[in-house]
Amino acid sequence: MRSAFNYRIVLHILSFLLIIEAVALFISAGIAALYDSVQIQRFDLFNQGTGFWPLLFSAFITLFVGFIGWGITFRVNKSITKKEGYLVVAFSWVLISLFGSLPFYLSGYFPSFTDAFFETMSGFTTTGASILTDIESLPKGLLFWRSLTHWIGGMGIIVLSLAILPLLGIGGMQLFVAESPGPTFDKIHPKVKETAKRLWAIYVLFTFLEVVLLMFGKMPFFDALCHAFATMATGGFSTQNASIANYSAYIQYVIILFMILAGTNFSLHFYFLTGKVKQVLKNEEFRLYLGIIFITTVVIGLGLFFQMDLNAELVFRNTLFQVVSIITTTGFVTTNYLVWPPVFWMILFLLFFVGGSAGSTGGGVKVTRILLLIKNSLLELRRLIHPNAIIPVRLNNKPVAQNIVFVVISFFLIYITIFAFGAVALVGMGLDFTSAIGASASSLGNIGPALGSVGPVENYAHLPNSAKWFLSFLMLLGRLELFTVLIIFSPTFWYK
Amino acid sequence: MRSAFNYRIVLHILSFLLIIEAVALFISAGIAALYDSVQIQRFDLFNQGTGFWPLLFSAFITLFVGFIGWGITFRVNKSITKKEGYLVVAFSWVLISLFGSLPFYLSGYFPSFTDAFFETMSGFTTTGASILTDIESLPKGLLFWRSLTHWIGGMGIIVLSLAILPLLGIGGMQLFVAESPGPTFDKIHPKVKETAKRLWAIYVLFTFLEVVLLMFGKMPFFDALCHAFATMATGGFSTQNASIANYSAYIQYVIILFMILAGTNFSLHFYFLTGKVKQVLKNEEFRLYLGIIFITTVVIGLGLFFQMDLNAELVFRNTLFQVVSIITTTGFVTTNYLVWPPVFWMILFLLFFVGGSAGSTGGGVKVTRILLLIKNSLLELRRLIHPNAIIPVRLNNKPVAQNIVFVVISFFLIYITIFAFGAVALVGMGLDFTSAIGASASSLGNIGPALGSVGPVENYAHLPNSAKWFLSFLMLLGRLELFTVLIIFSPTFWYK
Repeated sequence: MRSAFNYRIVLHILSFLLIIEAVALFISAGIAALYDSVQIQRFDLFNQGTGFWPLLFSAFITLFVGFIGWGITFRVNKSITKKEGYLVVAFSWVLISLFGSLPFYLSGYFPSFTDAFFETMSGFTTTGASILTDIESLPKGLLFWRSLTHWIGGMGIIVLSLAILPLLGIGGMQLFVAESPGPTFDKIHPKVKETAKRLWAIYVLFTFLEVVLLMFGKMPFFDALCHAFATMATGGFSTQNASIANYSAYIQYVIILFMILAGTNFSLHFYFLTGKVKQVLKNEEFRLYLGIIFITTVVIGLGLFFQMDLNAELVFRNTLFQVVSIITTTGFVTTNYLVWPPVFWMILFLLFFVGGSAGSTGGGVKVTRILLLIKNSLLELRRLIHPNAIIPVRLNNKPVAQNIVFVVISFFLIYITIFAFGAVALVGMGLDFTSAIGASASSLGNIGPALGSVGPVENYAHLPNSAKWFLSFLMLLGRLELFTVLIIFSPTFWYK
Repeated sequence: MRSAFNYRIVLHILSFLLIIEAVALFISAGIAALYDSVQIQRFDLFNQGTGFWPLLFSAFITLFVGFIGWGITFRVNKSITKKEGYLVVAFSWVLISLFGSLPFYLSGYFPSFTDAFFETMSGFTTTGASILTDIESLPKGLLFWRSLTHWIGGMGIIVLSLAILPLLGIGGMQLFVAESPGPTFDKIHPKVKETAKRLWAIYVLFTFLEVVLLMFGKMPFFDALCHAFATMATGGFSTQNASIANYSAYIQYVIILFMILAGTNFSLHFYFLTGKVKQVLKNEEFRLYLGIIFITTVVIGLGLFFQMDLNAELVFRNTLFQVVSIITTTGFVTTNYLVWPPVFWMILFLLFFVGGSAGSTGGGVKVTRILLLIKNSLLELRRLIHPNAIIPVRLNNKPVAQNIVFVVISFFLIYITIFAFGAVALVGMGLDFTSAIGASASSLGNIGPALGSVGPVENYAHLPNSAKWFLSFLMLLGRLELFTVLIIFSPTFWYK
């Protein structure tokens, strides 16, 4: 046991991540050169013009800082403790968001650094909340980088939720991985790498498939790629001001399908692709996930159909799209759900507190946790009647250790508390009651659209700077399963 | 172990409660005769006139039904099981509310039976939500009965929360009683009686003291009595349309004091009165309770003072009154908090989810549960850092069994879930978003005033019937600590 932190390994890993980010920025600059070639002749920063120069400039800065950090920590003790693991996780999202917001800020398309940072944090946390009032006016290079932040964030989340967080014991995540990894953090390194590679392959494969299917629907390659990035990461940034509303029914169904896939535990995809279909169909979280989508769509769909007298297919498609978009925490929009009779968007709002499956790119509370909460609540009544019987919660036919159920419930409790205090804080910053409640839930759940003045056809541009920073923090908290960030504020973390 | 329920003992106890209710109705009829003597000559039902005949008539009906039930179950096996205990608790509030609403309905002052039942359930659950638009137009007899439902409800709650629920193991209540009672329900009967008598004596004493102190402030005896009933039960029905707003500062401070006392664990009063002052001051729940009142008052008070430029004493008194009224779940009002800047009534709204102390007449989640939740959440972070250390939650320097913390967290979780689904249901019944959220939280917490169209200077008259029945159910759920009612809907309850 070392008594002090090994800050060098933390810095080493963070520097490595910056180098990766620089590569992504270079690629974006390349895209900018490809699509916005006419404007490249003029070197331009801080004036709305090309996306190329801001991206290239940011790529070099990021690479430079990354290399320096990497270099000065090169001869580092490679073993890493849990605490250092927490530090890496919490700071990586902050750091790549800081550097990632540079091209936005330098481009002049974003009114302030606050706005640029909000957009980037929203991207990397796969939230999809935007401060842009006219998305289509942006050069393609910047739009590409914007969508790419989603995709990179999604990659990070897969490895985080299926390989790193279970080891750290965060929020009961050890329960949600199909294969439980070894007990010590030091030993796991090769396994993390292998798991990550396998799941990233699925991620890339699905992204590729979606691009192809979207292009079949006559979506241009550039938009297909950006939308596939946003879908598979359950992000929600679109290249269009109207999000997905103006696309064909075919395209909307394709996106619904891939949102559902992105909100599913990626281990299940691996099982499915390796022929273990039974294990997928018997998975209780997967069944509840599909069950919630089905029931909510039927309830809202029938209600809208009878109350609003619209075309049945359109009602079904709009309802299913919005339900899937919210539960998976993607946040794409095809219709303004706030014009529905209030009870229907209230039901949709309940889904803000569900979220995707554990081990997916979806945010929020996660379906498994909801499942455990429901099971435990029902058991609580049975325990009252039979106080001496020990009745464990069972998940996929296996008893779940009491302390894990405990952690899961505590997680939900802290989640709800942060949501409530977040809403109060936002009202204090000038938001109205409904918007504050919506924005707090939406940011914490990494969804994007919310209620009131930050509804599905609105944006976050009009919020005060304080609210933008605060919401960025909520996005980070939600995306990193709360504890990873909160633990750093705990005094005991820094002792001994 | 018997396999079937002993329904006769359930019926026996319920009949006994009806007889007690009949006595209370006779007393109210007597008050009516005293104050409304001129109108008594004319026998009148269903027309707004006297309160005497409706009360007398209802008293006889209730007595009659009570005697019949009591008589046919007289030779009953007096031993009672837990399950039968649940049935008694859940049905007693429903039954006395049904019979208690008779005089309201028969008097013609209430537009419908729904309204009469809502008002009575609101009374017996010590909620204080009213459908009356002109309280002062009611005859004194009916106003007395209205306030008396609070006082009876408060008596019921004291014996329930300090003697019966701990035995049933409801929501961790076994933890909150100062002296833990014996392990079996059958053996405890004499102890329950003794505890109840002692605490009722304190309840009566405080009510008497408040009447005297209010009369010192020149409040007429009748109003002093009614307000003391409503204060000590943390109910909230006033005899005045303006609630407490038009009374003097002295009277408002007296009511603040007694609201605080009513929201304190009655065991602590017993300790205090028997000289064990140290035990009171060291009690962690009591300290948190006073701490929340202090901090919330300071934060809101300072905010209002600087933003609204009012008289300092008035701001302090109004803030303290509203804070104490909400946290104790009384619901008296001296100012419309909804005209405050939104962030301040949002902070007040957070108190909707705290409630009074365990073992007080206050409703809501209870301060002890909040205390355990806070302690456990902080420990959860420490547990992450030291995963192998067993760190129990400590309350008043004693470790709390993990399963009790578990039950408490589950309680809060179910509470929040019912609140959320309740709000959705109310929106479905036609309420707007803010009013639905307010009404759901207020009814479940037995508070009374809420937000929006059911705010502190509004009433519940305009709600649709469906919402009135639904809110009555929420009041019942909240008042009986959820589980007592929910357990009856559990299939396992009815098996074996």
